[in-house]
Order: sequence, then structure tokens, then C-alpha cells
Amino acid sequence: MTAMEKITYRPVRDELAYTFGGRMPVAHLCSGDVLEVFTEDCFGGLVRGPADLPSQVCSMPYLNPVSGPFFVEDAEPGDTLAIHIASIVPAREWGVSSTFPHFGALTSTSHTATLQPPLEERVWVYGIDRQAGTVRFHATETDHTVDLPLEAMIGTIGVAPGGMEARSTIVPDTYGGNLDAPQLRAGTTLYLGVNVHGAMLALGDGHARQGEGEACGVGVEIATTTTLAVEVIKGVPTLWPRLENDTAIMSIGCARPLEDAYRIAHHDLVGWVGTLTGLETLDAYQLVSQAGRAPIGNVCDPNYTILAVVDKALLPEPAAAYGGVHGRLRQSAAGLR
Amino acid sequence: MTAMEKITYRPVRDELAYTFGGRMPVAHLCSGDVLEVFTEDCFGGLVRGPADLPSQVCSMPYLNPVSGPFFVEDAEPGDTLAIHIASIVPAREWGVSSTFPHFGALTSTSHTATLQPPLEERVWVYGIDRQAGTVRFHATETDHTVDLPLEAMIGTIGVAPGGMEARSTIVPDTYGGNLDAPQLRAGTTLYLGVNVHGAMLALGDGHARQGEGEACGVGVEIATTTTLAVEVIKGVPTLWPRLENDTAIMSIGCARPLEDAYRIAHHDLVGWVGTLTGLETLDAYQLVSQAGRAPIGNVCDPNYTILAVVDKALLPEPAAAYGGVHGRLRQSAAGLR
Amino acid sequence: MTAMEKITYRPVRDELAYTFGGRMPVAHLCSGDVLEVFTEDCFGGLVRGPADLPSQVCSMPYLNPVSGPFFVEDAEPGDTLAIHIASIVPAREWGVSSTFPHFGALTSTSHTATLQPPLEERVWVYGIDRQAGTVRFHATETDHTVDLPLEAMIGTIGVAPGGMEARSTIVPDTYGGNLDAPQLRAGTTLYLGVNVHGAMLALGDGHARQGEGEACGVGVEIATTTTLAVEVIKGVPTLWPRLENDTAIMSIGCARPLEDAYRIAHHDLVGWVGTLTGLETLDAYQLVSQAGRAPIGNVCDPNYTILAVVDKALLPEPAAAYGGVHGRLRQSAAGLR
Amino acid sequence: MTAMEKITYRPVRDELAYTFGGRMPVAHLCSGDVLEVFTEDCFGGLVRGPADLPSQVCSMPYLNPVSGPFFVEDAEPGDTLAIHIASIVPAREWGVSSTFPHFGALTSTSHTATLQPPLEERVWVYGIDRQAGTVRFHATETDHTVDLPLEAMIGTIGVAPGGMEARSTIVPDTYGGNLDAPQLRAGTTLYLGVNVHGAMLALGDGHARQGEGEACGVGVEIATTTTLAVEVIKGVPTLWPRLENDTAIMSIGCARPLEDAYRIAHHDLVGWVGTLTGLETLDAYQLVSQAGRAPIGNVCDPNYTILAVVDKALLPEPAAAYGGVHGRLRQSAAGLR
Repeated sequence: MTAMEKITYRPVRDELAYTFGGRMPVAHLCSGDVLEVFTEDCFGGLVRGPADLPSQVCSMPYLNPVSGPFFVEDAEPGDTLAIHIASIVPAREWGVSSTFPHFGALTSTSHTATLQPPLEERVWVYGIDRQAGTVRFHATETDHTVDLPLEAMIGTIGVAPGGMEARSTIVPDTYGGNLDAPQLRAGTTLYLGVNVHGAMLALGDGHARQGEGEACGVGVEIATTTTLAVEVIKGVPTLWPRLENDTAIMSIGCARPLEDAYRIAHHDLVGWVGTLTGLETLDAYQLVSQAGRAPIGNVCDPNYTILAVVDKALLPEPAAAYGGVHGRLRQSAAGLR
Repeated sequence: MTAMEKITYRPVRDELAYTFGGRMPVAHLCSGDVLEVFTEDCFGGLVRGPADLPSQVCSMPYLNPVSGPFFVEDAEPGDTLAIHIASIVPAREWGVSSTFPHFGALTSTSHTATLQPPLEERVWVYGIDRQAGTVRFHATETDHTVDLPLEAMIGTIGVAPGGMEARSTIVPDTYGGNLDAPQLRAGTTLYLGVNVHGAMLALGDGHARQGEGEACGVGVEIATTTTLAVEVIKGVPTLWPRLENDTAIMSIGCARPLEDAYRIAHHDLVGWVGTLTGLETLDAYQLVSQAGRAPIGNVCDPNYTILAVVDKALLPEPAAAYGGVHGRLRQSAAGLR
Repeated sequence: MTAMEKITYRPVRDELAYTFGGRMPVAHLCSGDVLEVFTEDCFGGLVRGPADLPSQVCSMPYLNPVSGPFFVEDAEPGDTLAIHIASIVPAREWGVSSTFPHFGALTSTSHTATLQPPLEERVWVYGIDRQAGTVRFHATETDHTVDLPLEAMIGTIGVAPGGMEARSTIVPDTYGGNLDAPQLRAGTTLYLGVNVHGAMLALGDGHARQGEGEACGVGVEIATTTTLAVEVIKGVPTLWPRLENDTAIMSIGCARPLEDAYRIAHHDLVGWVGTLTGLETLDAYQLVSQAGRAPIGNVCDPNYTILAVVDKALLPEPAAAYGGVHGRLRQSAAGLR
Repeated sequence: MTAMEKITYRPVRDELAYTFGGRMPVAHLCSGDVLEVFTEDCFGGLVRGPADLPSQVCSMPYLNPVSGPFFVEDAEPGDTLAIHIASIVPAREWGVSSTFPHFGALTSTSHTATLQPPLEERVWVYGIDRQAGTVRFHATETDHTVDLPLEAMIGTIGVAPGGMEARSTIVPDTYGGNLDAPQLRAGTTLYLGVNVHGAMLALGDGHARQGEGEACGVGVEIATTTTLAVEVIKGVPTLWPRLENDTAIMSIGCARPLEDAYRIAHHDLVGWVGTLTGLETLDAYQLVSQAGRAPIGNVCDPNYTILAVVDKALLPEPAAAYGGVHGRLRQSAAGLR
């Protein structure tokens, strides 16, 4: 690891990216560097009140912008990029959510197509109180309000896909992307397989919080200042996105139908548990079957996401994942603050 | 409510039931009664060690026996039966799990049919330590062991379906059945719509614990002594199974593909939240989208199950669900101990 | 085979059945007998014009009545029942179709649940001209009409399921039921595995015709006089419904999601082709992959149906299926006319 | 339309493309031109016998090469590109098929992930007799052979996607791509919405024939000389791929699960029928429900494909689709021969 540097990046509007892949880098990082990056919200900051209907103020396909891509020196296909999320700070005192025509789990969509008219498009504005750690919901048709915990997360983070592809930032897949998993919060390390020279890391789509599945298709969308520490793990491939925090390891599956997301995530976790513990495959399958959790990320994006999670404390003498990089990055990020 | 009585029932082998519906009652209950019932494990107690392969020692379709049905006086179609789970006590010092040919999430099955040979059938025996509150996993191919928390649950509980149907106890659906949801533990109240005169409640398939999704298709299967308190809520229909505990309300969806289970559960929860709070429908959709959780029950049974859950503390001034029956039953059950 | 007899049966209203399984037989048949049976339409004949909205004139769950069950002498679990459809004659000069709230492929449903209001319920009345062989469509909102070919079929036909189950006649599954496959027309032989003593054959739900998938959930529904010839094939089990006509063999899969119906049907057909030709499994897989057709039955019922079909002429020297019973029954039915 | 020209193109190996989008054009066409193009088979011509296992002789992701893209003058976003397939001539006297690890409908895959080992990888070589119009299947484990009809088709044809995306040629979607529909044969006109300036048409992946669903994941793969006539329809958008031949119109849906492909295709066809006939939406839904066919393209690619088809003869006085371009292009292509 080279001497750690802190890179700060704030995109101007024209620099925002709408694909993973197919873009030139906006900056270079070295393994071990810390990156502080401003991310716009999924509406490019254009939805600020009830009158700003997303389908009117946003121009397709300019939705869900990401900051980047960042070229990571020495990252090559076949390596893994470890990305530790040190902090996610909401950049404004409000967030927004909405319904959106033909998008979301409880509506007909472009793919689950029906002959009914779409649900009404509507915007909700949330107040964010960083001190109190709350996000305030206001009903639109009645006077109800309620405070929900502020649990800031990054909805979209990924590297360039392989095979010369460029994919919309709305999509989650093997290379990350619009994973929309609440577990992508401060204290978590994300592992992504590198598909192209330089990895081409990018991120955006912060949420002050979201429910599991992101039922209406939109979280409490926020701009953020996010701090990451990255490290390249040479010669170790990673097929699907993985997460690690102090207590658990997690595999992410992205697919339709939703059961295939479950299968992918659990197939990957069974293999990972086998590698870390030395358990034979069916033994690892059995242990994950009794000890695992399966939180849902999204049930609205082009691919749905499910995580397969197991607590480290429920594994028999596990080795450190990826040579202990999670602990290393967490410490170096902590040292910086 | 009539004076509470405690009914105790222990089936002899020939009394075990393999369907919901199509059976005569084994006993009668009144609204307000407490029932203490012995339940056999899903293998009928016939799998006791590594040599007892389920496909050999069990005869199809005699799997997943339930105790009952119990005729509940005064329960009529259009009513709701509230069933509070007061306690679930493992009846033996061991539990078993297994793989099973063409069953489970990470194998080809009778429906996700492939041309590959099935996975090897294998049995795992777990030690249960009620004092320590642990379930001990032993690997079969290596020497690994690890203790998991004992979190006893009822896998299968339901009433007779409507329309003169009788359904295998392997199936979860609107009337309950093989829900395989870890939330069905002591302290929880289950609400089921009544479809036939007397409701015809039955239960079985205890698990010392299970992971979310029950990946391999089998939990840590146990016989139990389970104590329930029941109450009939007259004139209030319930479409899909619902749960309540001290902190949360939950709707259960049962379907394939898995996203339809998500849709059913969230559609039901949005309506329930609207009823309890007075929120308009899209406002309730928005709140559930940000505040909800979506734990998975099973991804292996004929219908998959997902729960939509919201904490009562995240709802604006909710009314008590079903007139506060959960608190009432919890208290009366507590008084009994 | 015993001497062939012709049994005629016309149910009175109270005899109509709404489940497969769980019913006493209405008549007995012997292997080799011919049965002429009147079947009501799926609405019990209660929808006769635009004002007869099905959700108002029908009482749930009294939909999709079948005539039967018929006890077939000598049919035992492990046998196969061959049912040759000799003729299907529309019983009236009209048929009806409709939309139905929350049912159909292009609407949200009870399972693909959304928050939108349902599509409008509406009835279409078709004129049936047996001489001309046409079914006349009349638009409801404009003056358009068009003649479609009369291609009468039986939508629902099956035997009792196993495991002491009784299933709604709306459901298709291993035992047949609401298959809604246009291939179930005169000249076709259906093979069903026998699950209970006497098989308990029943049928109904004639369609003057239907499109593939039955998109709106309802065909051109008719009452019929249907003539069948049956034969018990001893000691030969059949797992999923199979069809045979003069030119092709077909396997039927019933499942959700739709790809599992495809998998089941093709898995079964690959095995059947292997049995009839002596081709090794992967060779049979390869041949079916290039020579097979996969017509869709329904994409609206509780299980969707797909057929896997291969022309006998594209199989290398196939043996006669089920010992040539199709040809035998076709001849004996022809002799009767 | 400008004076028709015939452009001939034969790619050298380095010119083959593996994405739709993200590529520079290899040639320019004008509206009205005829293109004669050589297409390689899906294995790049590298699989020529039983010893050439695809996973060994091909390097990922260099599979399924297409010839192009061709820049079509005057094609702009919001237009439709009509592509008439005049002829598809197999370029060699053989074709190949294979199983491929973790690909196909009757095997576990990367997404329907299981813990079983993959099916054996194996190659089948077919003899193609253009005179006789046959494709000869040879079993690999026995001596069986059988002749199947030669029904040449183009598996992969599309334009660049929008939103700055570049997609692998393995994928079918709104812009066409790996549709794998047997209907893409000589005599058919394909309509694709234009997403980028110049449309960027490309094609490849000929099949001598394939079964519906392409069960094993691979057709009878051939190199071809294919002749197309193209026309730009200005100011008329097309959302999903559509087909027209002399007797029928067809809409194509691409999605997982398979029922969503059905929904997309039928939703589009209902709208198209309404536009061509003046039928109100529910009337068009009803007519398609009774008159439509739903042939399956593939059940193996990243998106599955289903077509919704209706015969022109079953529509009441339909207008000519897209102003009659199908007839025009068919004639001009015929004139050229």
C-alpha cells in the first residue's frame, strides 16, 4: 500500500454520469487512498417540493446520476476492489421521495405491464435533522407526521462492467450499480470484482433511509458527502458484490425473478463460508440455512436485490475475509477523521 | 369472552393430520381458551440420526404432520381467529435437519426441473440445550461445531381453507399453513380469516431455529409442547395471515414468484396501516416504503413467504389492531403460567 | 378390456362439483367405456348478456363447475388413465367472455397485487355457428365484428389429487384440472396419473375457442356435450398430464413463474422421448431443443400452463406411446358414431 | 425514398462486434437500401466438431458476434427502422449445437444457481442440405438420426440502445438484440425504435432452425448470407420490437420472469390492434385474448422472449401497419433478385 492520500471531488453538473462503463475517469486513486466525494440525489437535485413531479422536471434517461468514475491505479481484471464506506453525510436539510408512473412494487410497470392507468405521481418532502438523527415524514392528504431514524446509505455504487458493456445507473448487477441495499452504510466494506483496467469506481443516489424492498421505488433521496477508503486486492476475483462489517459477511444477488436473487446470494455465501471456515459444501449449505438472514434490498429496479448474511460469531473459527482488509480500511479511515 | 379454560391435547400417531381442511375435529375450543398441544416434528419423529434418510424412512405424502384440527366454537366465515403463541418448548434434546432430493432453494426441484442428478441426501443432528438457549451444529464431513441461538418457532399453523378445499400441510397460503416464518414464536399473535364453521385450527412443524428463506428446505426440526390462547373476532374478515407482537404489525404474503409474495404482503400492510392510522392510501404506501422491513420466511415451499413489517413506533398514533386483542391474549396467557 | 358401454350423464345443478377430490362419484365407468357428458360453462350458465356481470351473478367460490367425478373401475394409484376426447359439441348458440376484477394477464391480481383500481368488468357475447364453424366477436364500444374459427376445447379436466387433497376447479396441476390448453380438443388423448382408487374423473369449462395464454382470463365460455373414451393402463405411472394426437406427443407443465411451467413440460418430454426412442438423455434434450414447440395454455390461473410438443415425424423410429392406446381409443370412439 | 442501392458487407474477424451500442459504424445505408451481409455463427465459427467444446475454444465474452453496426442515414431517436428480411442463406454445409455449462432451460445457471455440478458439455454437428431443405440430427450416444426441416432464421438483430448504454449481444431487450425468435425468417419485417442518430443496425447468430424456447440454450448455429431491405419511418416511435409478415402482426416482449415477457408482448399488441382497427382498449384486449397466439422465442437468454401474434384475417378491417412498409419492402427486395 502506498502512502495514503485524501482526494476530494465535487462534480459540476456536466460531469455527472448516467452509466457504469463507457465513460472517461474524472480522477485517479491509488490503493489505500481516501476519497471524499459529493453525490447528487437521484433526481439531480431538481425535485425540491410537491410541484416538482419527477417525470416533468427530469429528462429521461438523465436520472440517478453518479459521481465518477474514478480510475484506481493497479486495478486489473481478476482483482477485487475493496471499498470501505467511512461516512455518509446528508448534504442538505431535506430529502424527497415520490411515486413515479409505472415504477415501484405495488403498481403495474413497463415490464409487469397492465392496461390500468398508472398510480398518481406525488412528491413527499422529508425534513432531516442530523443532530437528532431523524427523518420526518409528513403525510400529504392528512396532518400526520412521524419521525423515522436517519440511516444514511448509498443506493448506487459500482465499477465498470466487463465485455465492453455500459449499463444505465438504474441497474444493479454483478459489478454493483443500483443495489439499493440499506446495508451500504458507514462502517461497511464493499467488495467488487474488477472488470476493466482501473476498475472505474462511481457512486451516488444517497438515501436518508429506505424500507426493505424500496416498495414505492424511491427512498428518502438525498445529496451526500461520502468518504470512502479503497484498496486493490490483487489476484483475487469476486463474482457478485459482497459486503463486510464488524459483525457479518454478506453476499448480494441481483436478478429477476426475486427468488433468483435469493439463489445467487446464498450460492455465493455458501461458497464464501466454505472458503473461510473449511466446511465442506453441503455442511456450509446446512449452516447458512439455519444461521443466515436474507434482507431484501430492492423489488423495483431492473434487477431485484437480496443479501445473504451470516454473523461471523455464528461461523466456526472463520479466517479473516480478503486477508483482513475490512479492519485495515476501517482503521485507516478512522485515523483520518 | 367466556371463562378461560385450558385444554391439553397430545395426538396419538393415527390422529396426525396431513391436510388443512377435509378432516374431523380432534377437540373443541371456546374463544378465550388456552390450548397446550404436543406437535410432532416434520418427519413424524422418524429421522433420528444420519442413517435415517427422510426419503427412505418417511412415506409420501405423510410428511409435516399437524396436531388438530381444533373446532373453535362460534368461529364463522367472515370472522377472524386470533391465536396468541404463549410458549413453544422443544420436546426433546435434539433436532434434525437434512437435504432432501429435489427440495430446497439451491437445488433443482420438481418445479424448477433440470436434467442434473439431485444433491446428496444427508441428515444433520443438532443438540438442543434449553438452559443455555443454544442449538449445536455439527459438521458431517469435518470436526467443526458451533452454537446457534435457540429461537423456537412453529413452522405450520393454519385453519381450513374455503371453497371445500383440503390442502397438503406442505403448502402455505391465505389460510396459513406451512408459513415457515421465524416470527411465529412465543409472544406473537397470529390473525387468520375464518373460512369454515369452527375454523378448524391445526399446527405442527416446530423449528428450534431456521435461517431466513429456509435455504436447504428444512429447519432444525423439533417436536414441541406449544401453548396458545385463541379468541374469535366476530365480523372482521382477514384476507391474508397477519402477525402482531409488542412492537410491530406484520402481513404475510404466500406466492410464487417471490416478488408476488412481497407484493401481497406489502399491499396488505399498506391497507392495514391506512386503517389503523387514518393515512390515505398513497401516504401509507410512502410511509411503509421508508419504514418497512421485509423478512423472508421460506424460499422452498410450494408457495414462498415474505412478511411486510412495520414497527408501531414508526406509525403516527396508530389505533390498537383488532381492538387490542394481542395485549389481552398475552396477559391472559401470562396469567396462566 | 371389457365390452364397451356408452354411459350418458347430465348433471342437475346441485350435482355440479367445484373441487377435484373430496367428492363422491356420480357414476361408474369401466375401462373401455364411452362417456357422453353435458358440461356447464364456467359461469354455471348464469352469464347470458352484458348486464350479467360475473362478480355479481356468480357466488364465490361457485365458479368453474365440473361434471363428475366418475369412478373408473380398476383404476388404482400408480396406473395411468387414458382419456380420448371423441367430440366436443357446443350446447348453445352463444358463448360468453368477460373481464373479471383482479383476474387476467394484463391487470393487477390478488397475487400480482397493486394499489390501482381494477379494470372495468365487462361481458362479451359471441354467436356460435356450428354449420359455418365460426365464433362471432362483437365489439362493445364500436360496431366492429369479426368471425373467428370455432375450435371447441375442454378447459378443465382431471382426476382427484393425491395426499387427501381437494383442489378448487380453478387450479391446474399434476392431476390435470383447469389446464386451459387449446390442444384439449376432439381427437386428442389425455394421460393422467391415477392418485386415488377409482381415479375420479371430472370435466367442464368448455371454450368455443381461446387465444394462447387466455390473456383476459376468460375464453369464449360454453356449455358442451362432450364424448370421451377411457382406458386404464395398469402399472404405468404418469407424473404430469400428457397429450397425444395423431401427429404429436405433448407434456404439460403447470407452475408459477411461467418458466417453471416450461421447465416441467420440457423435462417431462425429454424423458418421454428418451423412453419412446431409446435416445440417451442429453441426445433427447438436444433433439427436443431443435424440434420442439412450446405452446402456452394459460397465463392467468393459479398455476400457468405450457405444453412441450414434438411431432412424431421428427422422432427417430418412436415406439407407440402407452402401448398404442391413443389409436385404439380413437378407433373405438369412431366406431360408436 | 432515395434510389435503392445494394450494399454488400463481409466482416473480417477483427470487425465482429460483441455489443449493441458503443461501436463505430462499419458502413452507411440509406432508407430504401438493400444490404447483403455475411454473419458468423454464435461461436465465431470456432466450434466445428465434437472436440471443440465451446467453453474451451471460445474466449468469454467473445461469443455471439454480430456484423455491423450499420449507420442508417436520416434515422433519429423517435423514428422507427423497418428491416425486411429478404433471405437467409446458410453459408456452410453444417451447423452445430451444444450444451454449455450453466446455460439453458433444463440446467442450473449463473442466476438460477444451485449447488449441483453442471450438465456435461457436448457438441452436436448437423448436416445441412439446402436442396432437400433439411437439417440432419445425429445422436452422439446411439446411432439414431432424423431429418428436421431447414427453417433458417436470424437469432440476433438490433439497433443501439438509448441512454448511452452498450449491451452484450447475448441480451435481448427493447432495442432487439438476441431475440432468438424463429419468426425472424425470410419474408418478415422487423420494426425497431431508433434510439441514437443513425440507428446502428447489427445482426448475426443465424440458426438453421431452433425449437420454441431454445431449451438447451443453443440452436443449430450457422453462418449466413442474409439480405435485408431497410426503411426509416420518420416520427413514428416503436417501444418494443414488432414483426409483420404477409399474414400476421406480432409484438415481442423480453423480460424475466417469463410471464412479464408475455405481459409486455400482449400489452403492446393490444395497443397496436387498437390503433390499426379503431377498437377501444378493452375490446382489443378481448379480441386478442380469443384470437391471439403466444409463441415462445427463448427461455435461456438474460431476458426471455415471447411473441404476441394475431392474424390480420382475424382483425376487423385493419389499416396497413406503419403505412404499408412491409409490402413495399418485400416488393423492392423481390425486384432485386
